[in-house]
Amino acid sequence: MSRLRVHNLAISLDGFATGEGQSLEAPFGHADGRLMEWFFPTRTFVSMSGHESEAVGTGTTGLDDEFASRWGHGIGAEIMGRNKFGPQRGPWQDHEWEGWWGPEPPFHSPVVVLTHHERPDLVLGDTTFFFRSLTPADALALATELAGGLDVRLGGGPTVVREFLEADLVDHLHLVVVPIVLGRGERLWDGLEGLEERFDIESTASPSGVVHVVLSRRPR
Amino acid sequence: MSRLRVHNLAISLDGFATGEGQSLEAPFGHADGRLMEWFFPTRTFVSMSGHESEAVGTGTTGLDDEFASRWGHGIGAEIMGRNKFGPQRGPWQDHEWEGWWGPEPPFHSPVVVLTHHERPDLVLGDTTFFFRSLTPADALALATELAGGLDVRLGGGPTVVREFLEADLVDHLHLVVVPIVLGRGERLWDGLEGLEERFDIESTASPSGVVHVVLSRRPR
Repeated sequence: MSRLRVHNLAISLDGFATGEGQSLEAPFGHADGRLMEWFFPTRTFVSMSGHESEAVGTGTTGLDDEFASRWGHGIGAEIMGRNKFGPQRGPWQDHEWEGWWGPEPPFHSPVVVLTHHERPDLVLGDTTFFFRSLTPADALALATELAGGLDVRLGGGPTVVREFLEADLVDHLHLVVVPIVLGRGERLWDGLEGLEERFDIESTASPSGVVHVVLSRRPR
Repeated sequence: MSRLRVHNLAISLDGFATGEGQSLEAPFGHADGRLMEWFFPTRTFVSMSGHESEAVGTGTTGLDDEFASRWGHGIGAEIMGRNKFGPQRGPWQDHEWEGWWGPEPPFHSPVVVLTHHERPDLVLGDTTFFFRSLTPADALALATELAGGLDVRLGGGPTVVREFLEADLVDHLHLVVVPIVLGRGERLWDGLEGLEERFDIESTASPSGVVHVVLSRRPR
């Protein structure tokens, strides 16, 4: 059975998955890069982004990378919200924006972008973006078909993850709790009272200061 | 220097330190005992409450008890909110209510109860309750004097802890993050944006499933 998985979703101690005031210049709003500082030094991020440097070399391979690297294993397609694809809101003014990732996006698979404003499919390297207005269940059905028997990754942002959790479609949720208090932004947990009844939950503290929390859907 | 310490303050994944609908019958509201399930089997709780039984014997002595037991070390006085002392609100109808703890409360020290409705001091065993209407700073000054050189414990509830954190009076905050999503109740983190700038934060995952998070005030 193909599963729906979320990986590397970072939240603050107070449960915000992104800050207030997202824009092209500040994709995480006032949180800046603070939710992802644990991620930047990992080999997974370095090899994904080409950010190899004297400071990080080819990247760390400790506990944080162990969790981060699971991102790509056995994934055949991704679903993401439009806000992850780009900072624009409302109808597309043109089709010049082609995502944050340049000509070779790191997905290497079909990507279903959920948006009320459809546009033509976009092929970049070995990633194809499909822009569709679909319910969570229908988006999962499409992505599962595109994944060809592999798992589907739910790439965020937090609003999309929450919608899929509310619809009880998520099988695996890897959170990273970062020891900061953001105070404002997009809350992950709103509307999810009692979520623990459907999941086994395991926490692992990392020497970097973050805590990896994995929620695994119990058999239905 | 006498420090102000908070111990064993449990919060849900979504940051609620108590549920909705607190009453005499449900001191944690709809959270019931779920925030304290990690605590009940510990030797610290068993010896405090006299709940020794065949099921728990004299209590567990693992990681959770290691954290829980720090509650009493080097403490000379406690400060608590009136909601921790009892379920009544508004003016005292009478003085019959003498707390949840019976004739031998587990504090063994002076306790300053913060209330807008003062009443005569109450002596129970070797615990004396002082009912005072004071600002956080003045309450701490009184408790520090009563503690005779030892530390002061801030006993909760969450509203009181948040007020003392806002006033930057807390030196040590031990939280226990319980893997449940409460959805409603009293939030610990509201109004505390940027708290991490004043604290070192260390997380330890327990085999029981909770995560102990210790915030230590940086030198001023």
